[in-house]
Amino acid sequence: MSGAPWPVEQILELRGLEARERSGSHFIEGARFVVAASDTGATFRSLVVAPKLLRSPIGQMLARRLRARGVPSLVVTPQEFERLSQAEQPQGIGAVVASEWQRLPQEGPGPLDCWIAVSEVRSPGNLGTLMRTAAAIGVRGVIVARSGRVDPFHPAAVRASMGALYSLKVVRASVAELAWWRRRFAPAVVGATPQASVDYRAFSYRRPLVVVLGSERKGLSDDQLALCEARVRIPMVAGDSLNLAVAGSIVLYEAWRQFRPTGARAAPGVFGRAPAGGRR
Amino acid sequence: MSGAPWPVEQILELRGLEARERSGSHFIEGARFVVAASDTGATFRSLVVAPKLLRSPIGQMLARRLRARGVPSLVVTPQEFERLSQAEQPQGIGAVVASEWQRLPQEGPGPLDCWIAVSEVRSPGNLGTLMRTAAAIGVRGVIVARSGRVDPFHPAAVRASMGALYSLKVVRASVAELAWWRRRFAPAVVGATPQASVDYRAFSYRRPLVVVLGSERKGLSDDQLALCEARVRIPMVAGDSLNLAVAGSIVLYEAWRQFRPTGARAAPGVFGRAPAGGRR
Repeated sequence: MSGAPWPVEQILELRGLEARERSGSHFIEGARFVVAASDTGATFRSLVVAPKLLRSPIGQMLARRLRARGVPSLVVTPQEFERLSQAEQPQGIGAVVASEWQRLPQEGPGPLDCWIAVSEVRSPGNLGTLMRTAAAIGVRGVIVARSGRVDPFHPAAVRASMGALYSLKVVRASVAELAWWRRRFAPAVVGATPQASVDYRAFSYRRPLVVVLGSERKGLSDDQLALCEARVRIPMVAGDSLNLAVAGSIVLYEAWRQFRPTGARAAPGVFGRAPAGGRR
Repeated sequence: MSGAPWPVEQILELRGLEARERSGSHFIEGARFVVAASDTGATFRSLVVAPKLLRSPIGQMLARRLRARGVPSLVVTPQEFERLSQAEQPQGIGAVVASEWQRLPQEGPGPLDCWIAVSEVRSPGNLGTLMRTAAAIGVRGVIVARSGRVDPFHPAAVRASMGALYSLKVVRASVAELAWWRRRFAPAVVGATPQASVDYRAFSYRRPLVVVLGSERKGLSDDQLALCEARVRIPMVAGDSLNLAVAGSIVLYEAWRQFRPTGARAAPGVFGRAPAGGRR
């Protein structure tokens, strides 16, 4: 874990997809995000701290703890941190974290699991917003098509997820791998598209469930359509589509609604169950 | 309507809230947005066309039609248009359009109407995404608090709305005006907040309805809370909140769901009704 900290220039390169892929790393900033990554056991490659900017007591404590764990730490001036930062109010703490890509679970999805599958989401903010909803209702993870250029570790995706990214499994799979997984474990695979004829509320979701979402402009791809056993649409009286993260969230909440009667409680992190004793 | 076209520098100033307020105007670009504004009878103050970039036949036709209607038109080079543009692929057509702020309807909301009310939405993209959902299900309009700095005509809001903004009434009202309107016409006023105890699905929405949304970070303001007769929350198993546009959209679709049984059809543009003969 120890070694030299990443210099500023190397961290800046992580804004590009190619550098994130090559290094298997991404950069996060702000106490909230560093806490979220730390809480879920993410691998920290390097820490950056601008002591003059770092006012958050939690951020200060976290910086100490990560250093004590041997994470290489770079101390920078506020000016240097602002070069790295894309926040309106830079908080003076950031970290290079390993991008934990996983493979499709070989034992199959759990019987109660829900996943989302994407291949060509154009806006990383949309993907992040969708992951935030997904994590909020115990979706297991996001399956990203190997063919696309979708990156859940894009800075805007991580930011829009509000750190929820770290409580999801992030899986990369080819079309063939996903088709095999589907045949082997038989989850319900449902695509959301304005071109469907079935109202998303009239559909009976079953678990395990995979909700497939297309691109903002073109909807579901041919590869995605071939995977779906059913397609659902969200009714409208005007316009032709909703924002992708909104549409995905509405379908996910409908599926969740069917699994979880109002007021039901159970273990957290399971799709369709509310936390034990928790209000939310 | 005729006169001198707006020069590039003056249009660029419209990126700032102050210039938009002072001039009562905003800038839109791209054929889709110019069409949406034109279709709903917006007032065009000035047109900008870069003929070398304008490949869309609809855009070309629209430019001709707006010029024929006497809208002053500026012809620019691709380089000049790119200075104006915030799009990835500038389409070579843009327009300065009047920001149609309205007052609260004095005759009151229609008996079937739904409105949204906001006061401190921080991200114009979130507001635009919410307006896109609202327009898709026949919400009448958005009521913006006079006290805040929320601007539905911010370029990012217009863009995220995909032009749906133009099919909504955009109302500015003070707290006192809204309180008066509420007393006078007695709509149901429901706030969405994670701090509520009522599940948004367990609540019985009635019409006319106003759905109140707070700020991304702080939720509903005290002024907003004082207006609400009820507060609803969206249940979660993890995390503490959803994206604002997602949360608002989920509540709006639930209200709509209660008013519109699956498959029901009626006139378009009325909350809870599907278009006559239309699929969507």
